Amino acid sequence: MVKFHRVWASLLTLLVSSTAFADAPDKWRILDNNNLVLMTLPYGQVVIELAPQFSPKHVTQFRALVKKGVYNGNKFYRVIDGFVAQVGPSEKSAADNDISPLKLEGDWDINEQWQMTLVQAPDLFAEQTGFIDGFALAANPSEKKAWLAHCPGMVAMARGNSADSATSHFYINNGQAPRYLDRIMTIFGRVVYGMHHVQAIQRTQMPEGDESVAESALTSLVTMQLMSELPIDQQWQLAVENTESPEFVDKLVKRKHREHAFFFKKPPPVLDICQVPVGTKIIKR
Amino acid sequence: MVKFHRVWASLLTLLVSSTAFADAPDKWRILDNNNLVLMTLPYGQVVIELAPQFSPKHVTQFRALVKKGVYNGNKFYRVIDGFVAQVGPSEKSAADNDISPLKLEGDWDINEQWQMTLVQAPDLFAEQTGFIDGFALAANPSEKKAWLAHCPGMVAMARGNSADSATSHFYINNGQAPRYLDRIMTIFGRVVYGMHHVQAIQRTQMPEGDESVAESALTSLVTMQLMSELPIDQQWQLAVENTESPEFVDKLVKRKHREHAFFFKKPPPVLDICQVPVGTKIIKR
Repeated sequence: MVKFHRVWASLLTLLVSSTAFADAPDKWRILDNNNLVLMTLPYGQVVIELAPQFSPKHVTQFRALVKKGVYNGNKFYRVIDGFVAQVGPSEKSAADNDISPLKLEGDWDINEQWQMTLVQAPDLFAEQTGFIDGFALAANPSEKKAWLAHCPGMVAMARGNSADSATSHFYINNGQAPRYLDRIMTIFGRVVYGMHHVQAIQRTQMPEGDESVAESALTSLVTMQLMSELPIDQQWQLAVENTESPEFVDKLVKRKHREHAFFFKKPPPVLDICQVPVGTKIIKR
Repeated sequence: MVKFHRVWASLLTLLVSSTAFADAPDKWRILDNNNLVLMTLPYGQVVIELAPQFSPKHVTQFRALVKKGVYNGNKFYRVIDGFVAQVGPSEKSAADNDISPLKLEGDWDINEQWQMTLVQAPDLFAEQTGFIDGFALAANPSEKKAWLAHCPGMVAMARGNSADSATSHFYINNGQAPRYLDRIMTIFGRVVYGMHHVQAIQRTQMPEGDESVAESALTSLVTMQLMSELPIDQQWQLAVENTESPEFVDKLVKRKHREHAFFFKKPPPVLDICQVPVGTKIIKR
């Protein structure tokens, strides 16, 4: 399969203008600004790509909330190093009371035709892991189910104890993947730019005995805007590695079977889905 | 086993002063300041616990280098979000030339008597994972080998292509565990306080098309000091969760079999060794 992809990639170089190859996936996928959200933190800007193809109801509600401006000026009130940074409309703003609870979109049905760019089988938490559209997924074909995986940078709705109680508060995974939350939380996007700014968010939970964190020290989410609603000259243009491209498949194979001299002893030929970076390219900002 | 441990813990509460229970492990382990290094960054202080029990030669050399002050004032020159923050004496200081290369201490032999607090078997990268002294480990009993696992916060020596070429430059894992580096790099310590400051270190590798990072923007390692060499009144006192205690084993079991109502559907009963937090308590700073 890899050899095939390499040949394909070479052919592409030669025949890139041929309409016969119009369907061959490019190395980069240009992101649709209708699916991008620009989050401004005091430290810089963060871009989230929404995933309506996986979590349509959550994306619809989130888009509406962003448009209403309910996140602007709220503090990240639950920030645990190596776990999550969480934010939402404060109780004072009462915005949360007007928002309908969402039905969990934690996993979805798959059939025999369903496919992803396979990364690992089996994984520690699933029968298979892989990518679609740059998003890390896991699947159990035996159950006919697939879902988005809680990798660093994934954006998901918080909820109460009830499965269908998410409304508006969300978290960004900022550490080792809490995969035990897979399928029971709804991931609806991922950070495609600015995780270094997310990592700068003031932690709220410190070790026992440490100085307590003052309310005034908490990080504000300054503004949250739909990229497509910004004036054209302020809109970014971004691309991410196309996880359906032959180049990406080749990268996976190289990552699994390390040929570089640095690897004087080869690691086990397995990949952690959350440890495979999907590159971002800034075309315009 | 958990039930046994619970009973044991209750007995401990009653009989804590009895010498008959002198060997029963406490919930907290007070850290030996001879094994602590205080790293001052522009954002705050970070404490690293060294692991002479696992990587004695690396710890001896690192201690000597810290004492000589070779790290002070150097810049973190390779900082990749979700991967590592790396630093070492600059070429100008020439300190690196005087330092002997170290023989890799990537893994070690184990026998039938060897044991750790078991977390997971099998793991994606090893037959078993577990803890000793708060350090995350992996082991392949079939090979009679064990090693420290590349979890977030682990501190390891960088090297060239040759296995035994590490001298002084080191990195701190700042993202999803790069477990493919297990056994081929020497981990010799871990961050027990201040990962939020490590996460603030200026990244040097940005996405294609992003603004380039000026040399002057790189983060300095201000000072690196052996905790035991500081004046007594400036020394911290720290404890970490004792991974050999019945309380910790109980925590592992609870983490594997989630009983809280939040988990309306139980996750698979598996644990990622790098996703189990080992708590730190500040007794004095």
